[in-house]
Amino acid sequence: MNIIGHWINDEVIIKENSRTQAVYHPSTGEIGAQVALADANTTQDAIAAAQEAFATWKTITPMRRARILFKFKELLEQNIDTLAELIGKEHGKILHDAKGEIQRGIEVVEYACGAPELLKGEFTKNVGSEIDSWSDFAPLGVVAGITPFNFPTMVPLWMIPMAIVCGNTFVLKPSEKDPSAALFIAKLLHQAGLPKGVLNVVNGDKEAVDTLLSDSRVQAVSFVGSTPIAEHIYRTASAHGKRCQALGGAKNHAIVMPDADLDNVINSLLGAAFGSSGERCMALSVAVTVGQEMGDKLINGLKKAMQTLKVGAYHDNDNHFGALISQAHKQNVQAHIDSAERQGANIVVDGRNPHVAGYENGFYVGATLIDNVTPDMDSYRAEIFGPVLQVIRVDTIAEALILINQHEYGNGTCIYTQDGGTARYFCDNVQAGMVGVNVPLPVPVAYHSFGGWKRSLFGDLHIYGPDGIRFYTKRKTITQRWIANKESAIFSMPTL
Amino acid sequence: MNIIGHWINDEVIIKENSRTQAVYHPSTGEIGAQVALADANTTQDAIAAAQEAFATWKTITPMRRARILFKFKELLEQNIDTLAELIGKEHGKILHDAKGEIQRGIEVVEYACGAPELLKGEFTKNVGSEIDSWSDFAPLGVVAGITPFNFPTMVPLWMIPMAIVCGNTFVLKPSEKDPSAALFIAKLLHQAGLPKGVLNVVNGDKEAVDTLLSDSRVQAVSFVGSTPIAEHIYRTASAHGKRCQALGGAKNHAIVMPDADLDNVINSLLGAAFGSSGERCMALSVAVTVGQEMGDKLINGLKKAMQTLKVGAYHDNDNHFGALISQAHKQNVQAHIDSAERQGANIVVDGRNPHVAGYENGFYVGATLIDNVTPDMDSYRAEIFGPVLQVIRVDTIAEALILINQHEYGNGTCIYTQDGGTARYFCDNVQAGMVGVNVPLPVPVAYHSFGGWKRSLFGDLHIYGPDGIRFYTKRKTITQRWIANKESAIFSMPTL
Amino acid sequence: MNIIGHWINDEVIIKENSRTQAVYHPSTGEIGAQVALADANTTQDAIAAAQEAFATWKTITPMRRARILFKFKELLEQNIDTLAELIGKEHGKILHDAKGEIQRGIEVVEYACGAPELLKGEFTKNVGSEIDSWSDFAPLGVVAGITPFNFPTMVPLWMIPMAIVCGNTFVLKPSEKDPSAALFIAKLLHQAGLPKGVLNVVNGDKEAVDTLLSDSRVQAVSFVGSTPIAEHIYRTASAHGKRCQALGGAKNHAIVMPDADLDNVINSLLGAAFGSSGERCMALSVAVTVGQEMGDKLINGLKKAMQTLKVGAYHDNDNHFGALISQAHKQNVQAHIDSAERQGANIVVDGRNPHVAGYENGFYVGATLIDNVTPDMDSYRAEIFGPVLQVIRVDTIAEALILINQHEYGNGTCIYTQDGGTARYFCDNVQAGMVGVNVPLPVPVAYHSFGGWKRSLFGDLHIYGPDGIRFYTKRKTITQRWIANKESAIFSMPTL
Amino acid sequence: MNIIGHWINDEVIIKENSRTQAVYHPSTGEIGAQVALADANTTQDAIAAAQEAFATWKTITPMRRARILFKFKELLEQNIDTLAELIGKEHGKILHDAKGEIQRGIEVVEYACGAPELLKGEFTKNVGSEIDSWSDFAPLGVVAGITPFNFPTMVPLWMIPMAIVCGNTFVLKPSEKDPSAALFIAKLLHQAGLPKGVLNVVNGDKEAVDTLLSDSRVQAVSFVGSTPIAEHIYRTASAHGKRCQALGGAKNHAIVMPDADLDNVINSLLGAAFGSSGERCMALSVAVTVGQEMGDKLINGLKKAMQTLKVGAYHDNDNHFGALISQAHKQNVQAHIDSAERQGANIVVDGRNPHVAGYENGFYVGATLIDNVTPDMDSYRAEIFGPVLQVIRVDTIAEALILINQHEYGNGTCIYTQDGGTARYFCDNVQAGMVGVNVPLPVPVAYHSFGGWKRSLFGDLHIYGPDGIRFYTKRKTITQRWIANKESAIFSMPTL
Repeated sequence: MNIIGHWINDEVIIKENSRTQAVYHPSTGEIGAQVALADANTTQDAIAAAQEAFATWKTITPMRRARILFKFKELLEQNIDTLAELIGKEHGKILHDAKGEIQRGIEVVEYACGAPELLKGEFTKNVGSEIDSWSDFAPLGVVAGITPFNFPTMVPLWMIPMAIVCGNTFVLKPSEKDPSAALFIAKLLHQAGLPKGVLNVVNGDKEAVDTLLSDSRVQAVSFVGSTPIAEHIYRTASAHGKRCQALGGAKNHAIVMPDADLDNVINSLLGAAFGSSGERCMALSVAVTVGQEMGDKLINGLKKAMQTLKVGAYHDNDNHFGALISQAHKQNVQAHIDSAERQGANIVVDGRNPHVAGYENGFYVGATLIDNVTPDMDSYRAEIFGPVLQVIRVDTIAEALILINQHEYGNGTCIYTQDGGTARYFCDNVQAGMVGVNVPLPVPVAYHSFGGWKRSLFGDLHIYGPDGIRFYTKRKTITQRWIANKESAIFSMPTL
Repeated sequence: MNIIGHWINDEVIIKENSRTQAVYHPSTGEIGAQVALADANTTQDAIAAAQEAFATWKTITPMRRARILFKFKELLEQNIDTLAELIGKEHGKILHDAKGEIQRGIEVVEYACGAPELLKGEFTKNVGSEIDSWSDFAPLGVVAGITPFNFPTMVPLWMIPMAIVCGNTFVLKPSEKDPSAALFIAKLLHQAGLPKGVLNVVNGDKEAVDTLLSDSRVQAVSFVGSTPIAEHIYRTASAHGKRCQALGGAKNHAIVMPDADLDNVINSLLGAAFGSSGERCMALSVAVTVGQEMGDKLINGLKKAMQTLKVGAYHDNDNHFGALISQAHKQNVQAHIDSAERQGANIVVDGRNPHVAGYENGFYVGATLIDNVTPDMDSYRAEIFGPVLQVIRVDTIAEALILINQHEYGNGTCIYTQDGGTARYFCDNVQAGMVGVNVPLPVPVAYHSFGGWKRSLFGDLHIYGPDGIRFYTKRKTITQRWIANKESAIFSMPTL
Repeated sequence: MNIIGHWINDEVIIKENSRTQAVYHPSTGEIGAQVALADANTTQDAIAAAQEAFATWKTITPMRRARILFKFKELLEQNIDTLAELIGKEHGKILHDAKGEIQRGIEVVEYACGAPELLKGEFTKNVGSEIDSWSDFAPLGVVAGITPFNFPTMVPLWMIPMAIVCGNTFVLKPSEKDPSAALFIAKLLHQAGLPKGVLNVVNGDKEAVDTLLSDSRVQAVSFVGSTPIAEHIYRTASAHGKRCQALGGAKNHAIVMPDADLDNVINSLLGAAFGSSGERCMALSVAVTVGQEMGDKLINGLKKAMQTLKVGAYHDNDNHFGALISQAHKQNVQAHIDSAERQGANIVVDGRNPHVAGYENGFYVGATLIDNVTPDMDSYRAEIFGPVLQVIRVDTIAEALILINQHEYGNGTCIYTQDGGTARYFCDNVQAGMVGVNVPLPVPVAYHSFGGWKRSLFGDLHIYGPDGIRFYTKRKTITQRWIANKESAIFSMPTL
Repeated sequence: MNIIGHWINDEVIIKENSRTQAVYHPSTGEIGAQVALADANTTQDAIAAAQEAFATWKTITPMRRARILFKFKELLEQNIDTLAELIGKEHGKILHDAKGEIQRGIEVVEYACGAPELLKGEFTKNVGSEIDSWSDFAPLGVVAGITPFNFPTMVPLWMIPMAIVCGNTFVLKPSEKDPSAALFIAKLLHQAGLPKGVLNVVNGDKEAVDTLLSDSRVQAVSFVGSTPIAEHIYRTASAHGKRCQALGGAKNHAIVMPDADLDNVINSLLGAAFGSSGERCMALSVAVTVGQEMGDKLINGLKKAMQTLKVGAYHDNDNHFGALISQAHKQNVQAHIDSAERQGANIVVDGRNPHVAGYENGFYVGATLIDNVTPDMDSYRAEIFGPVLQVIRVDTIAEALILINQHEYGNGTCIYTQDGGTARYFCDNVQAGMVGVNVPLPVPVAYHSFGGWKRSLFGDLHIYGPDGIRFYTKRKTITQRWIANKESAIFSMPTL
């Protein structure tokens, strides 16, 4: 069987006797390949490759680094079908959705092409008399990224172009569940002219991760995944003195106000709740209806609209969404539905154990709608990460805000309304990092930055966009004076 | 005896039966007061006061918050003599130096007055068709500052104005060795119109610090102190999920090139090495001379110039520098000199146990010059934090750079040269966060940011200046669309 | 009788045999003083003073320049009553309104205090290999401001603090109708520590203006006034090679949508239309009601609310607004009302020739409301600059937008609505530089920039705020390379 | 014979009976084609096409506009040989130099690809209590560019990508001497997906220019050419109320200090003085040597080095530079050499009437070096725009600075030195917009901005880079408040 290796110094590395793990094709339930799991030595090889490449890469001008990304963008566009196929096969998402993911990744590449502008420091003539001062944003060295299964292309591209265009070298540990997209990206970057060692990919599990977190050559760690792991990563990386941004889980609520445009709510919620089977940290998993009337209308509308939804294999673009990532995850999602039912919620549309003809062993859960959910239910408190939309009914926007603000997570949120004042009040008072007004998936575009609040993000800088540049650089401030005249020693604190 | 209390909700708090610690007057060696040491309860009171004040303070417009700082600046200028006296008495630095410190703090206040400009977010019309997106920089909530003895006014002012102008509320734990300046600042801010609870001061030791680091209401921690404590603070705050910037120790080298202007070198080194008795994290404590000739000239020149230096009590502005902070620290500094001597260095000017007439019990060490220091000596590897200048002689700038780049710390550094190419090479290749060219104390001005590299700073954002604003705010990104027309649900990742 | 002179090199200058002009007190109709009108020689003296002061002033660090403005702000606040009295007496506006004007001016001073941040250039390391480049924003030299009667303090303060903090020196020609406020400002700046010659004030008319426009030492001209004069200033200054920003007239419309909050509309329109007797370039002079019902409600509501309005002398804070600037202007305003009436509009509330007891010779016009105005009326096309609110009724927002977009002017505009989509549509499609949503006087705050579109502004940069900094500086870009190695001559265009 | 037409609405337009003008091939002296000269009607057609295209183009999101430029960059790179051939044939510059020019143009395209970042406005929450304000940078509409013969690709690309990525539509009037490159660019943009009418090209002379300057639909004019024309353009465009940036002539001096690296000086001066036959507004045409010794060394060194220089036909990459643009210009350049000789200068190397075998009718002048030039000579005061380097000898840097600062032009300048203090003094005190330190052609990179001082630029904003974005947009400031509560009318100036 095919073994998926690592990418170190522009070579595919598969060590003998390496531990491996099965890579499934969720649409069929079959094992597609084995992925090698890097041990500490292999991970250190990748770090060493990156460390060696850094000495030269940091001296390349920002414009030249950016030009490799211009070329990389071209290659991504030319190879979008191949890459989407890799994603669909190993992740299970439908090809149209895989291409959407790639497109979002390309947008970060486009942003990183602007590096010469983004890396400008600040210059002040005469901070004191004939003394100048300026800032320079230097690369950190070797930085690491640890990315989740749900966006095998987009999330690595949130990190890699930003990090390398700043002059860093990179070690990526992608999800071992769908590793092929990351390797393909590495090859495209090589083809675009990236020098060897600047980007390395190690597949692996805890051993690889722990090596990255503890190796003193790794200067910074970016992580996207679940909150417990994010918290562990943040603690461990920080304990080793590294800078770290660790993005965790989410429970994204939409408030549906009585004046909302119902058609827009229903249409956009379908995609936001069930797209990619809900395996998105920005998935809209809770709708909070304000007023009994809107609650009823929304349930009825969704129920009807969901009849048209098709779950199925990744390669059929008529499907709306595909299989979950694994059998275990499928069972986990269904257990959440069971739990909601048991605790008194109303399963309006039940997607458990759907029949997908020809793909009976795929890891499918159908679109599920649950009404009358309450904040104390286990299924409400957890991040389900499946095609499950829960509805909570409240009487006022104040109640809705309390729900959101008291939840552990604060990633994304949205309000549906036509009223400017209501929208402003919501945006101002909601405790979440990414807020939509009539936009259920308010993922910031590449030239803004992505990140949540509360336990959805550990660290201070968001990912990609302006914050991404700041995260991947360290500030050096130079103060310069050229001597013409003599003067006396100054013993007091000099005040400029 | 006078007991120095805490400042909580605009009141001086001294609890009965509180633990206390002596506050010395280093110039005389006498105990001037006792300072109360906050227990966990008192610290939590301060946090609670800040938490309560936050609800209102965050809603005040940036301009109104800034106007309190405009007034605060006026008050600092009006009260500079009183404040300098408090600093001098408890810290030992000479009044002219205390005023310099205050002036540097005022500059941060001036910068923070520009909050309406500094807090601007970014607005994009049409991130997608008729979809807008913008960022808002929100305050974090309660933030804490833990500050060192050596700048009892300046370092608190690196944090407080930045944090509060962003809409946060603050708990300061200043050094228990010289706590009065911080309390005076708190009163001036009250007088300037700061609402109660926005700034609170708790004096204390490990118990107060541990409470600040573990209390879940504290959102962020800024620390300035020694590297071992900085590392502990960074680990512990991060382990509790907080954002943290922790600034540690330094060993700042100056490279003296053969073409340097010798008069400028000598004059500026005197202040940079011995000012404030070397108790500055930006003190210039190592001179690296390039070429034998410059080594000899510098030693001879310094030796002669140091004859004029006067160490003595804080209130005499004719003195160049004053006592060290404590008897223990005096012994520690002298032990470093002993060690250098024992390990083969040449004590050119010996400041051990100076006689300061009338102040025989003060904690004085005179200006000390040590030649022929080598990188393996204990005194070279340590941060001495006393009026001790060590000289290392090398043959080339490359050797000098290796010294600096291999040292544990990377705070400040400087080169003395007349040559543009040499300066550029140095700035480009030196591993330090703050770099001077013919400027031995390259402390960034308030509108740039302060911070070192390597083990001199843990975290990603520097302190005050643009980074300070980013550290004290969290980013919220809003994406807004108003509905006019209907459209179909989108199941793919939307690409704008 | 008192003669108001010029302010040149920190001295009040009154030349013998100077032409003079009466300065009226509009509240009483009496002549309060004579103002000297500068001839070409006197104006050139002011320019020469500024030119001489520039040599030193440009070398002062931005921080030190800013500190004079910090002090100036204190002085403005301390002297607000005196300054308001000067404004009220010569302009006629009520003291509460004069203080509002001063406060707006102070805000620009506050913004200019941030000069060290605002004047930062951009630094790029490695535009080419080991080649650096950065920008520096240098002052222009002598710049001139020509300001209108309606804001004798605020408009000069839109220019002066911005220009001088950038390192320029300034010659102000304020309105000869109310010159005293500008002279008072000059004295406060002197008191704040501004070196002599940095700010000079010449009173005068066309002769002074023409001298400023043609003297080759004047590098830039800022003008605020009526459109015909603005156009003349722009042409003439440009023909002499100067940079110029010339702000002209306005006809600011508010669209009142059927869903608008009527109370807010009425309350805010009263101030926006009649405050300062409508002598504001941001006065709201046309209300466009959408739908017959809102038209009727608005007319009825305004009619009733206007009964409470009091017009009278400046010193009585119970008055809502005061006299117009001159007898001629009063007649002009009334002629516009006559014309509207003659052309078929309905004078709902008639403020012509009001009786103001005790001030029978003051230049008063009462608040006037005119219904059923049409776009072809003369009174609609002109800028009336009096307390006259005209109402046009339309059926759709599209019609309302066409009205605004086809008008000659494009200064400010506003929409009243509760609907987010309506507001966004309006903001996106309206042709005006300053747009309010439920804000009838959308004057940008000091840290944004002020300026209209179409024939309301000639030039490319708006006034004050970020554009103000750019207007008052010229960009210098330095590219620097230090030589270490030899290389061959490059004959092609070098590409970095 | 081939007639070169216009490009309007994606079609090549050649009207019958149009006036035409010969387009020469300077390398051979032959006429290569006739170019149609647009009359007013044709020019208005182009404006009308642009006006019509604007309605849609302005609504396209910045990202989508940028993507057309990403594609355009690819096409420019793929077609660089074809484009260079067009340039070389009609302009005469050698192919390697033509490619350098194209590469510089591509860099502006790359910069413009960052439009989503560059077009961000500024957002402020709470300018007043619950009032928000933000800025939006809107396109102007139809803008025009008028470009010179010497960079038939680069200068149009300084304007076009910047203008169109901001949402404007464009009418270009390139030089009628070498019009083909601009037409080729237009076709590539069409191929990249630019909608028709967004870019139009009219060839022509005064009639076309006057039409562009006076047509009220043209909102802004960018011009690059000689100073007398620049001044005329600036006056005329301004008199028609347009915004205008007009870049004129230059006389760029290099100061050669006694400590300069002579090899670098000589090598880099050869390219800077004679590259492109000196037909560059950044050509280095005057060397000012400080000290007699450096004067002699430089003359001797240049004299020797110039022996290797080859002038000849554009297609031979062994040639260093090519023919001048026309016979008339050749005679003009030679007349300047004659004049210098007549007025007492020393013609060290005489390039008049060189023999270029096989190209006897080409418009060649060889590299010419003139010593002992003085400031009063006619050849010194004029912009020669030919391969002529003049040397002036002075004793001090102060004298050298006076020369530069007193010259009419202030475009570029350079100093050769090794000394940091000398460089800083020069940069600070020289009156020029673009300053090099050991860089003789300090053309700002695309992400900085290009522009001179004094009579080298009329207007306030430089071309391309950050200033280019500001020039091609107009600021709209929105202030928004949503109504929740009632309040009283405010008659005073509201202070936020």
